[in-house]
Amino acid sequence: MSVVEDMDTGARMFHLIERLYPICRSITGDGVRQTLAMLKEHIPLQIHEVASGTQVFDWVVPKEWNIRDAYIKNAAGDRVVDFRQHNLHVLNYSVPVHARMTLAELKPHLHSLPDHPDWIPYRTSYYNETWGFCLTQRQLESLQEGEYEVHIDATLAPGHLTYGEYFLPGESTEEVLFYTHVCHPALCNDNLSGIAVTTFLAQWLATQPRHCSYRFVFAPGTIGSITWLSRNEARLPNIKHGLIVALVGDAGAFTLKKTRRGDAKIDRVVRQALRDRGEDCVVVDFAPYGYDERQFCSPGINLPMARLTRTPNGEYPEYHSSADNLQFVQREKLAASLGVCETIVKILEQDRRYLNTNPKCEPQLGKRGLYRKTGGQKDIGAREYALLWVLNLSDGEHSLLDIAQRAALRFDIVSAAADDLLACGLLHEIHQHGSTK
Amino acid sequence: MSVVEDMDTGARMFHLIERLYPICRSITGDGVRQTLAMLKEHIPLQIHEVASGTQVFDWVVPKEWNIRDAYIKNAAGDRVVDFRQHNLHVLNYSVPVHARMTLAELKPHLHSLPDHPDWIPYRTSYYNETWGFCLTQRQLESLQEGEYEVHIDATLAPGHLTYGEYFLPGESTEEVLFYTHVCHPALCNDNLSGIAVTTFLAQWLATQPRHCSYRFVFAPGTIGSITWLSRNEARLPNIKHGLIVALVGDAGAFTLKKTRRGDAKIDRVVRQALRDRGEDCVVVDFAPYGYDERQFCSPGINLPMARLTRTPNGEYPEYHSSADNLQFVQREKLAASLGVCETIVKILEQDRRYLNTNPKCEPQLGKRGLYRKTGGQKDIGAREYALLWVLNLSDGEHSLLDIAQRAALRFDIVSAAADDLLACGLLHEIHQHGSTK
Amino acid sequence: MSVVEDMDTGARMFHLIERLYPICRSITGDGVRQTLAMLKEHIPLQIHEVASGTQVFDWVVPKEWNIRDAYIKNAAGDRVVDFRQHNLHVLNYSVPVHARMTLAELKPHLHSLPDHPDWIPYRTSYYNETWGFCLTQRQLESLQEGEYEVHIDATLAPGHLTYGEYFLPGESTEEVLFYTHVCHPALCNDNLSGIAVTTFLAQWLATQPRHCSYRFVFAPGTIGSITWLSRNEARLPNIKHGLIVALVGDAGAFTLKKTRRGDAKIDRVVRQALRDRGEDCVVVDFAPYGYDERQFCSPGINLPMARLTRTPNGEYPEYHSSADNLQFVQREKLAASLGVCETIVKILEQDRRYLNTNPKCEPQLGKRGLYRKTGGQKDIGAREYALLWVLNLSDGEHSLLDIAQRAALRFDIVSAAADDLLACGLLHEIHQHGSTK
Repeated sequence: MSVVEDMDTGARMFHLIERLYPICRSITGDGVRQTLAMLKEHIPLQIHEVASGTQVFDWVVPKEWNIRDAYIKNAAGDRVVDFRQHNLHVLNYSVPVHARMTLAELKPHLHSLPDHPDWIPYRTSYYNETWGFCLTQRQLESLQEGEYEVHIDATLAPGHLTYGEYFLPGESTEEVLFYTHVCHPALCNDNLSGIAVTTFLAQWLATQPRHCSYRFVFAPGTIGSITWLSRNEARLPNIKHGLIVALVGDAGAFTLKKTRRGDAKIDRVVRQALRDRGEDCVVVDFAPYGYDERQFCSPGINLPMARLTRTPNGEYPEYHSSADNLQFVQREKLAASLGVCETIVKILEQDRRYLNTNPKCEPQLGKRGLYRKTGGQKDIGAREYALLWVLNLSDGEHSLLDIAQRAALRFDIVSAAADDLLACGLLHEIHQHGSTK
Repeated sequence: MSVVEDMDTGARMFHLIERLYPICRSITGDGVRQTLAMLKEHIPLQIHEVASGTQVFDWVVPKEWNIRDAYIKNAAGDRVVDFRQHNLHVLNYSVPVHARMTLAELKPHLHSLPDHPDWIPYRTSYYNETWGFCLTQRQLESLQEGEYEVHIDATLAPGHLTYGEYFLPGESTEEVLFYTHVCHPALCNDNLSGIAVTTFLAQWLATQPRHCSYRFVFAPGTIGSITWLSRNEARLPNIKHGLIVALVGDAGAFTLKKTRRGDAKIDRVVRQALRDRGEDCVVVDFAPYGYDERQFCSPGINLPMARLTRTPNGEYPEYHSSADNLQFVQREKLAASLGVCETIVKILEQDRRYLNTNPKCEPQLGKRGLYRKTGGQKDIGAREYALLWVLNLSDGEHSLLDIAQRAALRFDIVSAAADDLLACGLLHEIHQHGSTK
Repeated sequence: MSVVEDMDTGARMFHLIERLYPICRSITGDGVRQTLAMLKEHIPLQIHEVASGTQVFDWVVPKEWNIRDAYIKNAAGDRVVDFRQHNLHVLNYSVPVHARMTLAELKPHLHSLPDHPDWIPYRTSYYNETWGFCLTQRQLESLQEGEYEVHIDATLAPGHLTYGEYFLPGESTEEVLFYTHVCHPALCNDNLSGIAVTTFLAQWLATQPRHCSYRFVFAPGTIGSITWLSRNEARLPNIKHGLIVALVGDAGAFTLKKTRRGDAKIDRVVRQALRDRGEDCVVVDFAPYGYDERQFCSPGINLPMARLTRTPNGEYPEYHSSADNLQFVQREKLAASLGVCETIVKILEQDRRYLNTNPKCEPQLGKRGLYRKTGGQKDIGAREYALLWVLNLSDGEHSLLDIAQRAALRFDIVSAAADDLLACGLLHEIHQHGSTK
């Protein structure tokens, strides 16, 4: 453990990903339990088990799936496809099978990627009971005519859906929700990266003073968020800002997918945080396809839930294949993603509205030691500029976030300027937190 | 006739244009009557005659103009300018004249195009009683000094202004108005193209089920729309959407000239229709110059009347000259213009608002056979995407048109998705038709 | 004087600048008084004197500063830096000093521009009592070790702050405020250019009929506008439009800095005026740094005060240095700036709203002699186009300025069209002046 403690944060997140990588996760089963148990080494997750058959809105919690082994053996008895080599080799949620068959009978159960002949695809069949194997195109093409033994040693039986939750209370009941999906097997960016960053964010936030309350949910995609939402409807009005964190370990630029309403405060906060940290950012409008924003932004839920990824789902070649591996995610990208999330939290925490107590003309900053002594220069520094902007826009209508955006200044510089002005009585705090928008 | 029936639609519209081309139309007179009579072979037009002298708002219906022959003969008795060669040769609405004069006396009555020496210009003098001839610059330059005989065998006398109207009732009293001008003589794109496309649109629509009611007006430019408006004021509140169709046979891209208010539903429908059909589209704001939108969008009328052309008036060299001839319009462009108009009608007909009956999280589409069985692929097809969009935005505020525009999907795909969702009970129709905007 | 009268306006403004250039101005003192006295040769300025120690909002009117001579002499007794050579050589508002010191003791009091070694910088120390000299980098580098005599023969003592004001009443109490700063010593563009243009604007406007009332204030930067505002609070509600005029003699394109609210009528008027005169224009949003807009647009004042400059403060290399000299400003640029200001006034004066008295369809312009007699041409002239636009938008909601902007026509053409339509009864004036926005 001391080796890990010596690591920088990026390396520590990468180390967690390395440990999580071999586990075969799905939307239910022991893979999710093992994953959450490993996260409990970092944060005191509360584990929830929801029984198969439970109605969750239009859906029913499915039977629980567990797998021990799976293979295709050729006539010589060699494992030509072997789950022990890679857990993507089995179609996720395959029903158990043990049979002998010809290649022609086998082929309809095989999935490959002709355009990427060395990669194993990731395929699922959660709600259609069948079995299958995923393999590289080269493996597929090397299969000779003859008899094969196929074996999937799995169980699909009544059990539970498992998710983890961590709540950090703040001074206010106003909640911020972070959600990340935990259902994918050996895929590093999608979504061990999101799991690692969210875990380390929660661990850091536990040590910070908090105005808002924070909730972290680690749950399977789609059925997990549907289950969580159906069990937490009474809590939803408290959730003022939310963020899906996923696919944050690759080398691509960040993508903010905006909330369904498109002008929520979280949309603006994420942009400000990315700008403040010098990160490029692609901003896309909400669309009802992607990750769990589909559920959080359904018309009857409609939470202000944005999504932060780097390269989005489906837009990199390695997506949902064995090439989304430990080489595909980078320690420094994970660290930068965590840094962005921390900045998002800081902006949410520090955004406030003030009233300029001397609104007629500028107050004389020089006599308060807040302004340079010699005049006439071409430029003004960011700090003096921030002082002037905070004074000018602290008219009760603008929060510090509004001011930072209008002035194109870093939020922390604006916030520090407000602190200085508050200290010398030039601002008066309005007791309504932050921007209303 | 069987030859015509064997033609495709583009060829049939072109055939109609060929028959209409030789007729000398004006804002009144037998040319318009012959034109409307030819259209009656396709649709049961109602013909209206409004007497000269009738007050129509600030205007008075002018005397009726008819022409039989016109020429300029040189000293040798040759017809050097001859109305029988081209009906553009006479200044439209010329008063009768029969006189001998020198070239110097004649010249103030001659109009030519120095920049296009082989083309005859189209010129009019409706409200200033004079006479004149239009000729090519080469003809003009070849005129020798000497005496000329000029003869315009025309009458300008009390009569009528003639227009045609065709009404197709629908389930609703909500009306859609199509307007096209019929006053130009031998000019093919301006506006035999508009006449042909509007006629075939009406003919097709007569065979379709209709929610809206449709009205088609074939009338002269300016005085025709003023006359129609002054006689139909009580009807105007029923007109919810309107379109001027003109200049739709040339090879140029489409131009949508928006309504005066600029955000009417018809503005959005035309754009969607052009996009759905893969047509390039230039969108221009309303301006009080052009065709009959000048009257429909005057401040006291202000109907939601857009205008669809290909290259707009005045923006192609052949405009208002003998070069706007049978070679200038193309069968396939006419057919494509008709197709766009049909798509406009389909969108107006099918646009509806629904309520998602299962608004909390997505409904499980798979169990209803509406979703693919194997998961994990990169892409989602347009149909599944349309299903998700319709569910997400069917919150009572968005119509199918709103959804198609937000989702950047074809309207017919969105509409078909709504049909599927309605069939399995996931949508409930709101009995207010379409987008309010 | 007859020589001056023969000059064109640009040359006359330049001549005024030449006379003002040698005067050593500051925020108080005889330099401002001499400047205003010279302006009184053109316009009957009212001179205001406000005593040192007067509280003006958060500020106090400072002691008055006057200077007679200043120099640095080397050991040989030569004036190596000499106020008589250039009044920028002394740090503006330096306290008196007469002492001998080493170069090392002297250096903290010296200001230069290493990047522009031949220019003297302009530096001030209004509110921090110190003394200093400004010199070229070459002068600085040529100073040998040794003893120097420094002498600043100045007084800083209770006195007055001086500003000038000129009020031109109009038919209405609605006021337009022009403000320009007069505190800079030998700097031509900043702001002898603004002083000259504002003076000549006032002189011209005194000869014109006026609907609005106009007020011109010539006062020092920052403390001058704060002083004026604190003494004129009761008058502020009358000020409907305001403009800071400064830095208008250089060769750069115009920059409009918008009002704090960003959509005031003056913002639109300035843009229209620049467009009408064919001037390029950079438009920037309000920011609380620059000139006296900082005070006029403070949150508790918030007047609709825009700012017109050519190249803005700090954005040209010569800014606040001896290179902002008589060569840096150009007669024809001064004349063009005055022309823009006159056009701004004309638009403010002539903007009105009308009602089309014949709003249903177009009125027949031809029978009123307002339209061409022969039809069919490709183009319509700007005048006929303006007639159509004025008729179309004179629905009570649009002013002539709104129409000119929508139609992309020159304001004077639109205004002339309105006059023609009013003359023949097609418009009715609404007795509310201009655009409300």
